[in-house]
Amino acid sequence: MAEGNVKVLGAWPSPFVMRVRVALHLKSVDYDNIEENLLEAKSQLLLESNPVHKKVPVLIHWDKFVCESLIIVQYIDELWSYAPSILPSDPYDRADSRFWAAYVDDKFFPALRRVLLGPTEEDQKAAMAEVLEGVVVLEEAFIKLSKGKAFFGGDNVGYVDLAAGSLLAWIKVIEKFTDTKLLSEDKTPSLVTWADCFSSHAAVKDVFPDTDKLADFGMKFRAEILKAASATTTTN
Amino acid sequence: MAEGNVKVLGAWPSPFVMRVRVALHLKSVDYDNIEENLLEAKSQLLLESNPVHKKVPVLIHWDKFVCESLIIVQYIDELWSYAPSILPSDPYDRADSRFWAAYVDDKFFPALRRVLLGPTEEDQKAAMAEVLEGVVVLEEAFIKLSKGKAFFGGDNVGYVDLAAGSLLAWIKVIEKFTDTKLLSEDKTPSLVTWADCFSSHAAVKDVFPDTDKLADFGMKFRAEILKAASATTTTN
Repeated sequence: MAEGNVKVLGAWPSPFVMRVRVALHLKSVDYDNIEENLLEAKSQLLLESNPVHKKVPVLIHWDKFVCESLIIVQYIDELWSYAPSILPSDPYDRADSRFWAAYVDDKFFPALRRVLLGPTEEDQKAAMAEVLEGVVVLEEAFIKLSKGKAFFGGDNVGYVDLAAGSLLAWIKVIEKFTDTKLLSEDKTPSLVTWADCFSSHAAVKDVFPDTDKLADFGMKFRAEILKAASATTTTN
Repeated sequence: MAEGNVKVLGAWPSPFVMRVRVALHLKSVDYDNIEENLLEAKSQLLLESNPVHKKVPVLIHWDKFVCESLIIVQYIDELWSYAPSILPSDPYDRADSRFWAAYVDDKFFPALRRVLLGPTEEDQKAAMAEVLEGVVVLEEAFIKLSKGKAFFGGDNVGYVDLAAGSLLAWIKVIEKFTDTKLLSEDKTPSLVTWADCFSSHAAVKDVFPDTDKLADFGMKFRAEILKAASATTTTN
């Protein structure tokens, strides 16, 4: 269903962008995808549409800009309020979904990022230990929230599925780089099954990046980060 | 209006706790206040009610625990959904409020905290520069959101008022410690007027801490943090 003039300013390797695109797919909202190149200078459109953070994704809806992936997902759910709902309807369940989505962004993702981009090997190792604890915490959250169904959101992909599921492609890349299973039948059996369900879901599979292509991007991105860090050290 | 069995596990110096208490006052919800001592070991109730973060505030509603201040505020607004509304009704305005509340928590507060608790004088100085930029950004946001009214939320205290206003007492403490005006007629005239309106609002004034008492707590808290950091360094 087309509803107004909807554009996503995004980038294919970004998990945060994936959340927004999957949310639009769930609601059957047509949109134009504008690709930002994360390895090049930021576009004028990005600087103008998100002047505070200068980060993708930005949802451009008519003349309005909405920033920050989980805020955009809530905007999509509230504006196109027909089923499927992304957040549950009960206030406590909504709070619980928001809690776990915030856990993913504030605790789990920063550790995952450090496994790839941490400044030292020691830091990367410490980050890996945090990630391995984090997946067990998320396994427990999944069991509580899913109530025996396929998704954190129950029968449907919901808010926590978008938050956590968007990281699955990067989890595969990190598993490949580190030769360490982050999700396993042994420690996180429910998340293993959930990861398959999520990545093959109709709203997800077309925007789920190929692991090898993402790994290649990851190496280039890491090189850019290290180059920038080294430049800062030199000029300080 | 009493609605079920509502308790706030909080601590008077915490800006995050203040948000929750003010939200309950706005909705005229009766609650019991359970005080956690931030200078002592965490209580069993805190460890059990917020096992992931082990932080106040926790809203205890019957047998349910809701954690994370802005998530609790949204829970309160959704559960006791009568006026005054804390979040606006329009999806874009809601997204904008969430954006600025997230800005306060993710960008502004961490810098403010470092002014007091940063590990070195150099870091504290850099943090002060970030804070002085941040208040100007918030002044612009206030002009946009308030549309000439008294609050970020317009005529009423809203979501961004709770997010930013809860930091005002700490801003006064930092002004006192550093002898630097963070809010000024010169740079942030709208925020100066707003700060007066917010702190004297009927829902706020009884939970707005006294600056001298908060400054005294701040010194003790800083000493605890430094002691803990020194212990970590010694044992590593």
